Amino acid sequence: MTVTIDLNADLGETTAGNPVADDAAMLDMVSSANVACGFHAGDAHSIAQTVKAAAERGVVVGAHIGYNDIAGFGRRFMEYSPAELADETLYQIGALDALCRANGTAVSYVKPHGALYNAIVHHEAQAQAVVDGVKAFGDLPLMLLPGAVACDLAEKAGLRVIREAFSDRNYNPDGTLVSRTQDNAVMHDPEAVAARVLQVATKGSITAVDGSVLDVRAESVCTHGDSPGAVELLRGVVKQLGDQGIEIRSFL
Amino acid sequence: MTVTIDLNADLGETTAGNPVADDAAMLDMVSSANVACGFHAGDAHSIAQTVKAAAERGVVVGAHIGYNDIAGFGRRFMEYSPAELADETLYQIGALDALCRANGTAVSYVKPHGALYNAIVHHEAQAQAVVDGVKAFGDLPLMLLPGAVACDLAEKAGLRVIREAFSDRNYNPDGTLVSRTQDNAVMHDPEAVAARVLQVATKGSITAVDGSVLDVRAESVCTHGDSPGAVELLRGVVKQLGDQGIEIRSFL
Amino acid sequence: MTVTIDLNADLGETTAGNPVADDAAMLDMVSSANVACGFHAGDAHSIAQTVKAAAERGVVVGAHIGYNDIAGFGRRFMEYSPAELADETLYQIGALDALCRANGTAVSYVKPHGALYNAIVHHEAQAQAVVDGVKAFGDLPLMLLPGAVACDLAEKAGLRVIREAFSDRNYNPDGTLVSRTQDNAVMHDPEAVAARVLQVATKGSITAVDGSVLDVRAESVCTHGDSPGAVELLRGVVKQLGDQGIEIRSFL
Amino acid sequence: MTVTIDLNADLGETTAGNPVADDAAMLDMVSSANVACGFHAGDAHSIAQTVKAAAERGVVVGAHIGYNDIAGFGRRFMEYSPAELADETLYQIGALDALCRANGTAVSYVKPHGALYNAIVHHEAQAQAVVDGVKAFGDLPLMLLPGAVACDLAEKAGLRVIREAFSDRNYNPDGTLVSRTQDNAVMHDPEAVAARVLQVATKGSITAVDGSVLDVRAESVCTHGDSPGAVELLRGVVKQLGDQGIEIRSFL
Repeated sequence: MTVTIDLNADLGETTAGNPVADDAAMLDMVSSANVACGFHAGDAHSIAQTVKAAAERGVVVGAHIGYNDIAGFGRRFMEYSPAELADETLYQIGALDALCRANGTAVSYVKPHGALYNAIVHHEAQAQAVVDGVKAFGDLPLMLLPGAVACDLAEKAGLRVIREAFSDRNYNPDGTLVSRTQDNAVMHDPEAVAARVLQVATKGSITAVDGSVLDVRAESVCTHGDSPGAVELLRGVVKQLGDQGIEIRSFL
Repeated sequence: MTVTIDLNADLGETTAGNPVADDAAMLDMVSSANVACGFHAGDAHSIAQTVKAAAERGVVVGAHIGYNDIAGFGRRFMEYSPAELADETLYQIGALDALCRANGTAVSYVKPHGALYNAIVHHEAQAQAVVDGVKAFGDLPLMLLPGAVACDLAEKAGLRVIREAFSDRNYNPDGTLVSRTQDNAVMHDPEAVAARVLQVATKGSITAVDGSVLDVRAESVCTHGDSPGAVELLRGVVKQLGDQGIEIRSFL
Repeated sequence: MTVTIDLNADLGETTAGNPVADDAAMLDMVSSANVACGFHAGDAHSIAQTVKAAAERGVVVGAHIGYNDIAGFGRRFMEYSPAELADETLYQIGALDALCRANGTAVSYVKPHGALYNAIVHHEAQAQAVVDGVKAFGDLPLMLLPGAVACDLAEKAGLRVIREAFSDRNYNPDGTLVSRTQDNAVMHDPEAVAARVLQVATKGSITAVDGSVLDVRAESVCTHGDSPGAVELLRGVVKQLGDQGIEIRSFL
Repeated sequence: MTVTIDLNADLGETTAGNPVADDAAMLDMVSSANVACGFHAGDAHSIAQTVKAAAERGVVVGAHIGYNDIAGFGRRFMEYSPAELADETLYQIGALDALCRANGTAVSYVKPHGALYNAIVHHEAQAQAVVDGVKAFGDLPLMLLPGAVACDLAEKAGLRVIREAFSDRNYNPDGTLVSRTQDNAVMHDPEAVAARVLQVATKGSITAVDGSVLDVRAESVCTHGDSPGAVELLRGVVKQLGDQGIEIRSFL
């Protein structure tokens, strides 16, 4: 049986006509595209172009929903009432889905962005609101950080949860990511990154910074498209996977 | 056979928690609600509340799409590339439709707002872009000003056009509205407003400011919800229509 | 010697052309106007009209700075880096001051709005950032809730602090406001409101909900302009103060 | 006597944390920085960083004012009432000036951006509104396209006008720029660009696409920072000017 792994990236994060990533190059390599919905980045037209490019390549589209904060790129925690957050979740998925359907695809999963992604690791009310918003649209899978309180709430609500690993972030022995305030938060060595993805795909594990081996049941691996050298880094990953006969394929 | 007429109003135009109209009172009387989609007014949560209230009353929901200009309430003309405008049209309809479906209704027609409504009376490229955006979502009726170039383009594209009259605006002999720069642009007399609607419903005509009678095949009559006394004005219309045995009913 | 008290209100909170308060009526009665700066509400033109109206009446203008959140009217807590918040504070004061100077007045103090006002009661980093932003503009007084950590930090930085009381909010025995989640959070009785302001002005005290008397050294009293009946409520206060020979005068 | 020329560039156009140009590299070479004011791009903190970097290098700061349209990067024409546009002009200058003064500099001139820059070449009402907004702040020079109606209105109002040339755009024989819809709109050859700037600086002329020589009294030359290779292009210009003994110096 062929071993497979899903590769995802955050795309369509163009603001004011200025893309933050080389979307076309990334779309040539990933199997899942988390596409911005206009709240933390993206506008209707740039989103349409991104989902069209994804559809042409057979890349699955997910709704990369975020806080309503273009200025802060969705990277600042914001207080929300549960009803507001659920409705904004629904609004974003609906908007993106309409653009998808006009371009030959559809929203197939949801992945929260930035500060929202981090908040629902522990913030129960916001996690439940996101789950409620997704459920109100339909039973789409939610892509989340393993261990997040949102994982439990989503599964309790009957949603499939896609747990993801990060190709280019170091992990603490307890399974959390090394904070970006630390020097070794981000991995820059292409070989180490490729090896990381390979280990997730074949062994379901990640080696933490202290050498201990973490059990991770990640169905997808995220690579950041907006860091310098992102395309090259991902190219190394893709080559390594190909060399090992591992297929890059959506989790769907 | 019962004579019927559709009454529509612009609703859900809450900004920053501050409604500009008494949505609940208006929804008790109209048959069609043009609901803001977040681009000229409205946020996801206030929109959700408005469509829920509409659904509860059996009021049909239309997408009140606008330019991306909260600060100007969509009342300023903006240049757009056709693709941008078509994609923004689609984005707004999709977002509103998702909120509708979670609240027991759906987007059943589209009515452009403010400066966009006025622009597509004569601006062919923008008119075609709106038509394209609507078509990309589905074959929804477009509510427009009679005589607009958008009417022709919409019908050419196979969309149903709902022509509307205004209950509280005076008309020039050529069928255009008396400009708001004129003192007599807006009608304030409840009896005159009620008589206007009655005339549209029963005779398909409007009496212009010079006394000439215009032939209008309007299937819907709009009343502005954000003018002072709007609710009282509409109450007079509803009473008059009831007294004459005319049913207020959606054009659908 | 004449007893004096400063009356302040939040004004200029027009969004998309829709004012939330009767600014003209309120400006006829207050001595200090906290004018929105465009981040939680207000746009350049509506702000200009408000400061012009204030200048014409001799009402002192303060910068009512807020989080960058028009959609939420600045009522949602947002995470900020200190430098971002200090720079946004400075940006808002500078913008408002330019509009003031073109209309015959100037920014004379700063009062944070909504969630930011509440955050800096206890959030030291944000409180210090606001103080830093004000200092970067000049040594303007800061209007704050008595007991806020921002009071200490402002005074430590050499800024004058104006402590304010609320005319229409009930107080707990410990000096905090009764939460808006409680039924008795807001006072609606015009006589009680007028008595409250009188007590603050003449005795420097407030009677809490349990009848205990709190010592408050408030130099200003705030009345909310956006609650129903706000103008009438304030009219009662002004009359009561007049009857007692107390002068409404800025704290400057 | 040393021949001098002012080099300007649009900087501080960071949106959502994503810069569109290499501001630091550009600031090392230009004498004038047109800094975004938050309406078409830039946020308070990124603006503060840009003006600080400019101040450290002795680069003069101008207010790069734009339409209130982050989504469109200020590149779409927008209708405005004159009062609105004048007040937004004033708001932007005031905000930027406050950030400048806290960082050791001040706004020393004003240059409209994008669609506004183009509009006031012929749109008298908007041109006058910009002039009025600048005058309301103070008698700052306005940087404009030679021949713009705004030049006449600004000079009539007593403002100094700085006419600018473009280092990397081809000119028609009538002095207008070759439209971006034409293939030869933009010059990519470093030597041609350097020669262009040299010709402006030493001869006050520009050679149009047909070889005819246009008389241009440009006091400043603009280089776009957001085009690929912008830094290299400007480096060539700086070297050429240095080789010819021409000093890069602000027009002030």
